Amino acid sequence: MRTIRVTIWNEFLHERSYPEVAQVYPAGIHGALADALAKHPGLEIRTATLGEPDHGLDRVTLANTDVLLWWGHAAHDEVADEVVERVHQRVLEGMGIVVLHSAHFSKIFRRLMGTSCALRWRSDPGGEREVIWTVNPAHPIAAGLPQPIVVTHDEMYGEFFDIPTPDELVFISSFEGGEVFRSGCCYYRGAGRVAYFSPGDQEYPVYHQPEIQRAIANCVAWCGGAAASNDAPERRSGNAPRDWFIEPGSPARTR
Amino acid sequence: MRTIRVTIWNEFLHERSYPEVAQVYPAGIHGALADALAKHPGLEIRTATLGEPDHGLDRVTLANTDVLLWWGHAAHDEVADEVVERVHQRVLEGMGIVVLHSAHFSKIFRRLMGTSCALRWRSDPGGEREVIWTVNPAHPIAAGLPQPIVVTHDEMYGEFFDIPTPDELVFISSFEGGEVFRSGCCYYRGAGRVAYFSPGDQEYPVYHQPEIQRAIANCVAWCGGAAASNDAPERRSGNAPRDWFIEPGSPARTR
Amino acid sequence: MRTIRVTIWNEFLHERSYPEVAQVYPAGIHGALADALAKHPGLEIRTATLGEPDHGLDRVTLANTDVLLWWGHAAHDEVADEVVERVHQRVLEGMGIVVLHSAHFSKIFRRLMGTSCALRWRSDPGGEREVIWTVNPAHPIAAGLPQPIVVTHDEMYGEFFDIPTPDELVFISSFEGGEVFRSGCCYYRGAGRVAYFSPGDQEYPVYHQPEIQRAIANCVAWCGGAAASNDAPERRSGNAPRDWFIEPGSPARTR
Amino acid sequence: MRTIRVTIWNEFLHERSYPEVAQVYPAGIHGALADALAKHPGLEIRTATLGEPDHGLDRVTLANTDVLLWWGHAAHDEVADEVVERVHQRVLEGMGIVVLHSAHFSKIFRRLMGTSCALRWRSDPGGEREVIWTVNPAHPIAAGLPQPIVVTHDEMYGEFFDIPTPDELVFISSFEGGEVFRSGCCYYRGAGRVAYFSPGDQEYPVYHQPEIQRAIANCVAWCGGAAASNDAPERRSGNAPRDWFIEPGSPARTR
Repeated sequence: MRTIRVTIWNEFLHERSYPEVAQVYPAGIHGALADALAKHPGLEIRTATLGEPDHGLDRVTLANTDVLLWWGHAAHDEVADEVVERVHQRVLEGMGIVVLHSAHFSKIFRRLMGTSCALRWRSDPGGEREVIWTVNPAHPIAAGLPQPIVVTHDEMYGEFFDIPTPDELVFISSFEGGEVFRSGCCYYRGAGRVAYFSPGDQEYPVYHQPEIQRAIANCVAWCGGAAASNDAPERRSGNAPRDWFIEPGSPARTR
Repeated sequence: MRTIRVTIWNEFLHERSYPEVAQVYPAGIHGALADALAKHPGLEIRTATLGEPDHGLDRVTLANTDVLLWWGHAAHDEVADEVVERVHQRVLEGMGIVVLHSAHFSKIFRRLMGTSCALRWRSDPGGEREVIWTVNPAHPIAAGLPQPIVVTHDEMYGEFFDIPTPDELVFISSFEGGEVFRSGCCYYRGAGRVAYFSPGDQEYPVYHQPEIQRAIANCVAWCGGAAASNDAPERRSGNAPRDWFIEPGSPARTR
Repeated sequence: MRTIRVTIWNEFLHERSYPEVAQVYPAGIHGALADALAKHPGLEIRTATLGEPDHGLDRVTLANTDVLLWWGHAAHDEVADEVVERVHQRVLEGMGIVVLHSAHFSKIFRRLMGTSCALRWRSDPGGEREVIWTVNPAHPIAAGLPQPIVVTHDEMYGEFFDIPTPDELVFISSFEGGEVFRSGCCYYRGAGRVAYFSPGDQEYPVYHQPEIQRAIANCVAWCGGAAASNDAPERRSGNAPRDWFIEPGSPARTR
Repeated sequence: MRTIRVTIWNEFLHERSYPEVAQVYPAGIHGALADALAKHPGLEIRTATLGEPDHGLDRVTLANTDVLLWWGHAAHDEVADEVVERVHQRVLEGMGIVVLHSAHFSKIFRRLMGTSCALRWRSDPGGEREVIWTVNPAHPIAAGLPQPIVVTHDEMYGEFFDIPTPDELVFISSFEGGEVFRSGCCYYRGAGRVAYFSPGDQEYPVYHQPEIQRAIANCVAWCGGAAASNDAPERRSGNAPRDWFIEPGSPARTR
């Protein structure tokens, strides 16, 4: 089985500014995710953060990344347009990207979606119960997960969530206020794949919950499948001579 | 604007057996739906019930129906296979069908879906609150509806709902127990259209609620759009001579 | 029936630079499209071109447009980013947009899609036969069209076409070289709708062909349906108090 | 990596009745497919044919099958309804099924689709050129395949193909007459997956062509992914007590 090369990108601001966040994620959210994914064989994991040169996403790193995880919240605007362009290009070339929670408003996700990616939300102190339902049990991202997954404290994200209709909808969540949310969404873009997974927040230990870790690992595996062996779109397009694909001597040609 | 010819089919058993149901729907569920749709111009409405010959769905009636509404619950098995076959054929030819609530288990819906159409459910005395969220505000079935629609008492229907992924998903509901449900689902089948709309029950006055009536009228309008002018699939298929569609004298022919 | 207010946007460069194009489209492509749509009742039609102030797409014009048609080819880069942003915002608010042929590479289409929108193409002198097949006869855009539509001379556009999977795929074309192309594609974006229709070119009289005119009129009607009565996404989202939608006295509230 | 247990089902009539078919597929089409799949590690392969008791598809065999391939043409009606019912149930429980070429008209495929599955076709002596285009390069079924795949002699299958809109469309083919066909289609049904792959015919050596063999192996791998670890739909549904999933002591419960 081919190794999937994973880069976990984290804004990494909350954990350094708020002691209560640092307490939940002492190694950063990227650290928690790295620990969680490390339990799965076949993954080669590195991390990158906003503060690094090129935000840690230089050309070489991206070229050697099969799946990128993206967590951002407070500083979407500080991500350089040039890096967004570079990541976008890599997705279309075949890289997978797993977009987490508040990264629904990241530049890269809005660019890939073509919509505002706005949503309904609520930040009650203490959070509220999120119940995550699988609506496509045959999808690889649902593999091995209980029905439903209960997260006892999370931030409410609700509809209308301004995204394109998912190519594959895997999870729908409910919240205590009666809201619903498409919380596990899959997209194909160019030769790459995009998974959006909303459960998780900097204030609650959601990323320490085993079922959530398994769901994210499933997202990584699904997104990583695209990078295997496909050509980038541009190698499949361009100006074409008529009958260019008919080999000499082919009986069809003589028709 | 073309008139849409609507036939409302109702099993019509509960209303005659249970006084509490008759009190909510004194004219039958089909009567309540007919009254609701009568407010909309451009509809020509008739009803049909299980007890009539051919269940009221003889060949002539179906041939003159653009959209069929289907309500059944207790007697799905009593619907003759021959009638199911006839309705199925008419849908593929271009008729629309709006499948309501417990008709998820009707023979015709299961046949159109190809799955078990099983779901999670709960019948607490008094029902519970259903909150209906629009997840595709650009869809015609969402036109003119508030976000969300609140039904104070309804029966819980929850995921996993064993249906094919909807071609267009319009509504998702939540229930007090934390369940979610894809409550407004659209499908194309052959030259016809299928809308499944779950809110509604024989015990609660859901079909008397104006927003629900509007949603069902929207379903009828959407389903009725298919019947306009399209060929049935079989008239578009069959054994084809090579280049049959190239008219004499066409420059392409001389290639 | 509500009037649909249509604005036909054309780059309008080829027709003024090349006599052979002017011969095919003496009133400009926008003029030809306006004439074609004028045959359909219920449309209020105006045109706009690149050379006008604001490219003819100022705020007031867009606010009074239900469906925008877009034709561009040689000067995509000359369209101001500010106008693209404005059009994008209006689509998410509920305006429809019909994107024609070479506008696959327009800024607005690429922005709405989130992909490169690259494709395979070929420009043989004289063009070649395009055969357009309906693959969803139940779709409103297919209404009243023959199966197939034959365009005797058109430019080849082929797969892979780097777009998101269409929410609804209506047409697939073939070309003489053996290529195929998803030539009629529908998308929901926010509260608006997008239709991409590829047949048509500045060099061939495709937009004078009645079936093509009917297909484009169908695209306009479908795209115009979204603007009817829906809220813009942002009016459906934002920070929400828990149980904000539960009216006082509702039994659900006392739970 | 988990082994995928594959059962290749073949009607196995043509090969025994027509010397020219036997010459192309001396070991039967099932034999040719078994040889092709045997090149791929991780597959455990057996075959079954119409003439065996229970058509070789008894309960034990199906319970031990992760992916079933289905080839039929002349004797769809001879397949016992009881066996169709059994296979259908197994798909909903999580088995994958790869439906090949003329099996578009098999009972099991029509049952899973809910439509007529009719198509346009042509059987010219000698067949004609089929060109297979990938329209979703990010899909696992497209992995490792050239763009396009050219089959020099095949039977024409054309649109309209009366199937539900595929959940994932991977391939579109063109034919010499100018027809197009959705030739690689994926569906989720219950906890199982369905892939339809049309290239291939009893008269031409299509199943001996390496790219076709790779495409079919990809279909098997994709379909086999569903069987991993998911619950059948019925184990996810049924009558549910309110708040059944809230564990004692959960903070959410005390709300």
